[in-house]
Amino acid sequence: MVNSKPYVIGIDMGGTNTVFGIVDARGVVLTSDSIKTKKHSNINDYIDELYTETMRLVRAIDAEGKIFGIGVGAPNANYFTGMIEDGVNLPWPTPVPFAQLLSEKFGIPVAITNDANAAAIGEMTYGVARGIKDFIMITLGTGVGSGIVINGQLVYGHDGFAGELGHVIVKRNNGRLCGCGRAGCLETYCSATGVARTAREFLEIRTEPSTLRDIPVDAITSKDVYDAAMAGDKIAKEIFVYTGTILGEALADFTAFSSPEAFVLFGGLAKSGELLLKPLREAMERNMLSIYKGKVKVLQSELREADAAILGASALGWEAKPIGVAITPPPASATPAAPQP
Amino acid sequence: MVNSKPYVIGIDMGGTNTVFGIVDARGVVLTSDSIKTKKHSNINDYIDELYTETMRLVRAIDAEGKIFGIGVGAPNANYFTGMIEDGVNLPWPTPVPFAQLLSEKFGIPVAITNDANAAAIGEMTYGVARGIKDFIMITLGTGVGSGIVINGQLVYGHDGFAGELGHVIVKRNNGRLCGCGRAGCLETYCSATGVARTAREFLEIRTEPSTLRDIPVDAITSKDVYDAAMAGDKIAKEIFVYTGTILGEALADFTAFSSPEAFVLFGGLAKSGELLLKPLREAMERNMLSIYKGKVKVLQSELREADAAILGASALGWEAKPIGVAITPPPASATPAAPQP
Repeated sequence: MVNSKPYVIGIDMGGTNTVFGIVDARGVVLTSDSIKTKKHSNINDYIDELYTETMRLVRAIDAEGKIFGIGVGAPNANYFTGMIEDGVNLPWPTPVPFAQLLSEKFGIPVAITNDANAAAIGEMTYGVARGIKDFIMITLGTGVGSGIVINGQLVYGHDGFAGELGHVIVKRNNGRLCGCGRAGCLETYCSATGVARTAREFLEIRTEPSTLRDIPVDAITSKDVYDAAMAGDKIAKEIFVYTGTILGEALADFTAFSSPEAFVLFGGLAKSGELLLKPLREAMERNMLSIYKGKVKVLQSELREADAAILGASALGWEAKPIGVAITPPPASATPAAPQP
Repeated sequence: MVNSKPYVIGIDMGGTNTVFGIVDARGVVLTSDSIKTKKHSNINDYIDELYTETMRLVRAIDAEGKIFGIGVGAPNANYFTGMIEDGVNLPWPTPVPFAQLLSEKFGIPVAITNDANAAAIGEMTYGVARGIKDFIMITLGTGVGSGIVINGQLVYGHDGFAGELGHVIVKRNNGRLCGCGRAGCLETYCSATGVARTAREFLEIRTEPSTLRDIPVDAITSKDVYDAAMAGDKIAKEIFVYTGTILGEALADFTAFSSPEAFVLFGGLAKSGELLLKPLREAMERNMLSIYKGKVKVLQSELREADAAILGASALGWEAKPIGVAITPPPASATPAAPQP
């Protein structure tokens, strides 16, 4: 049977850019482009521009009427409600019924979820997690995000907000302040931002020479630390050991939850290679409960960075339902039935 | 349709006693009894006695030929393999193919899982979690066990060993030694044993009077601490605040994983009521990421203690498959398919 709607649109909304593309069922990104997320202070203007630019791509590949659905990865997007609940870095007021607005504009079903969940779906559908039914995606970017897959299903939780492992507390006392208002969250240590914070701390309390001292301390980025470590800088290498150790300890604890076959690391920091992965694996195995030791893989995403966000979001597009057909969790049974043999 | 096999057998194997009973589809424990787990050093002798005593009950209620399946909760029992993998407190060598041995002896399908998972299934089927699709069972006994339910399904993980939340590290530095060989595990603080350890610590470092000082320090149990706290003893009450706070902090972190609708507490310590629950709820809410605050219930099991273990195990009996029909996770697809629209 030839399907008359062989394409999906994937949209990845970041704080700075919104990238979008048209993807076929094999996971090929046929065409893509981007707009500035913050250009408009009114969400309808943003959606108008997104529509105009996306439809330009659709027409260019002669795909009008052939789009099955739209998948969106966006900050704090709720799969169940279709709402963007809390857009800390977005220029419009939230909560906003983003899936509904987009679906009305395009006349195409829309499904949304947060960016880390979209990444997990992308990895499961097209990436290194193909064929793995139980894994945890960890995105190491400005923050630390996560998408949890159990028995082939993304875990949304009772309210659509499961999988905020970047906000598990890893330092209960004197932990670093986090953007979430609490202290000691994993992402204050193991994100790109966290690596830069560690660099500033290490440079202040240590006296050894380091090429990082040539950079104004508030301008140091995780990329600077990576470059210095690759050039053999001792303090820079220790920053990666410190970061990898904390992340490895956390992954050992996460394993006690869902006993995944693998963790999949994604994002800029994940590309630091053995600088990060060696101390990470060592700390993870050292801190693992014995029944889990030696069983859990740590994989790096193999998706092309340029395509990954669009691919992840687009994979969700295949799940999109027409307006009026709500994506909701299965209703809790009103009359709890004993099993009927 | 009248089912010809309307009963299941539930077996709960503890380190000391093995309790078993016959349960109908409404969750009524029709009859039950127990044997000593450690009486025999050969597993076949244990199974022979278990068979003899169980079949005595079966005949007494005229249920021969009417047993649909047997469900077993046992330490380190693996749902996928039917093995008891590591029986720290058991008198026979492990691993042992317990489901197979039992099924061959009884001629009835058998399903096994660990005790905390069995408790979660019982709570979901007959208890306070009826109608709740996303919850986490926390058993507070000699140790701390857990059974995680997501979207109405128990989480087994890729190897059958998911849900060891008692072994999440809550004190990374100078944590208490745990029976698992590591240090700082949740169960070293929040089990009945943990409460007794806290009592010994508090009595040693504090100088205030306490009725707990009338008890030989190595003989203090969590029940003694409970009784003292109920009688108004200041140190005993602080021990519960300490315990509840650590558990509440841990539950806040667990919420970031699966965003459950509720935690269900089970076991002797869970019956301490507000002594434990008040500091627990306060610490949980105080440490919760804002999107979860005020959403997650903390429930106490309502199953009768005498029935709970049998009920939980028996509920699994409805899932039991005949010998030769393996309970295995769905196979990972060999050729990972892109979604077919």
